[in-house]
Amino acid sequence: MKLYELSLSEGRTVSPFVWRARFCLAHKGLEAERIPISYHDKDQLVFSGQDRVPVLVDGDMVVSDSWKIACYLEEAYPERPSLFGSAAGQGTGLMINKFCDHVLLGSMFLLCTPGTYDVTQDEDKPYFAQSRQEWTGMTIEDIRSMEAEALKRVRSSLEPIRQTLAEQAFLSGDTPAFTDYCVMGGFMWARTTYAPQVLEPDDPVEAWRQRMLDLFDGMGRKTLSLEA
Amino acid sequence: MKLYELSLSEGRTVSPFVWRARFCLAHKGLEAERIPISYHDKDQLVFSGQDRVPVLVDGDMVVSDSWKIACYLEEAYPERPSLFGSAAGQGTGLMINKFCDHVLLGSMFLLCTPGTYDVTQDEDKPYFAQSRQEWTGMTIEDIRSMEAEALKRVRSSLEPIRQTLAEQAFLSGDTPAFTDYCVMGGFMWARTTYAPQVLEPDDPVEAWRQRMLDLFDGMGRKTLSLEA
Repeated sequence: MKLYELSLSEGRTVSPFVWRARFCLAHKGLEAERIPISYHDKDQLVFSGQDRVPVLVDGDMVVSDSWKIACYLEEAYPERPSLFGSAAGQGTGLMINKFCDHVLLGSMFLLCTPGTYDVTQDEDKPYFAQSRQEWTGMTIEDIRSMEAEALKRVRSSLEPIRQTLAEQAFLSGDTPAFTDYCVMGGFMWARTTYAPQVLEPDDPVEAWRQRMLDLFDGMGRKTLSLEA
Repeated sequence: MKLYELSLSEGRTVSPFVWRARFCLAHKGLEAERIPISYHDKDQLVFSGQDRVPVLVDGDMVVSDSWKIACYLEEAYPERPSLFGSAAGQGTGLMINKFCDHVLLGSMFLLCTPGTYDVTQDEDKPYFAQSRQEWTGMTIEDIRSMEAEALKRVRSSLEPIRQTLAEQAFLSGDTPAFTDYCVMGGFMWARTTYAPQVLEPDDPVEAWRQRMLDLFDGMGRKTLSLEA
């Protein structure tokens, strides 16, 4: 099994989508060889019919998109711990995935983009800055100047998550599953690209984040991070 | 089994929380005697130790709060169709519940409050207006003047739901379950208090809402509504 990842300077894994896939693989107890891809060698992904990471290769199967990878793992490895628990859990998982993409990563984008630029290899920096300017109309420095507002937006967008974690240990209940990994992807992006603390120390989300960093022999904690 | 409901003029059931409980009961194939409560006779709820609807009475059990009612029904009637499908689905259900309360009902509040005032019994209108002014600092007419902005906010807050329903028939997958009922509660509030269409006709959320209105022999469709 191979997982194609975005890899930035010093081999940093920053993509929230790659992190979702890595957590889902770990939950299933599966190991994949990690294949690093830089912005400048995306043509290595041509075989997948698209140009974004993560891409999972499992024998003859090629699956891109972190949501589809989670669904594939659930279907292909039903005897291993379930990511969703049930069909209703999987259905709701898609809504969680959309919430994470649209609301949570939407707010994280402003916070994490300047640091992602900083850890992008020098040869890819012009591409990275230009593509973000095309999406947003802002330069990296414009976005960097919005840090205080971005932090406020991230903390505010976490409110339903915060209220949930005030009542239970994980977003999926007593033990972690897909919902947790989906949200944690965003926090791994922050951990690898943003040095200050995203969360107040007494935020229930912070206690959960620490529990998530401990999972799978500290997989998230051990990664090269900018976090203090 | 008895369900204490908020009942406004002509017996209208407007509370999104009551509607969540009604849909959950119907999903389990359970019938409860519906006990109407007005704002001025909330003292009928004293036995429940709090003053909000819905309250479910099942033999000796008294359960208030729509989330706790859903969890109670799941635990007490495990042989009937599951609301969550699994422990992971139930865990994630709490996050869905918090999202609905905080984000969706937060945006629906401005849209539905003026119409809720209009269908509140005359003797309760002063209490209703004053309590909303204490919460928001705005009069009913202040809130009514914000209709266009409120509609925009509601439609925007639905984005993760819209994207999910572009890919599957129900928020819980192929068939409806708790996640659908939780979101639908908000739309039942709108249906009973807001005459204009909340959704564009080609919005995937609108097609889903129509499917939800058909469920359980048209339970939602048959209720006294303001919708054209």
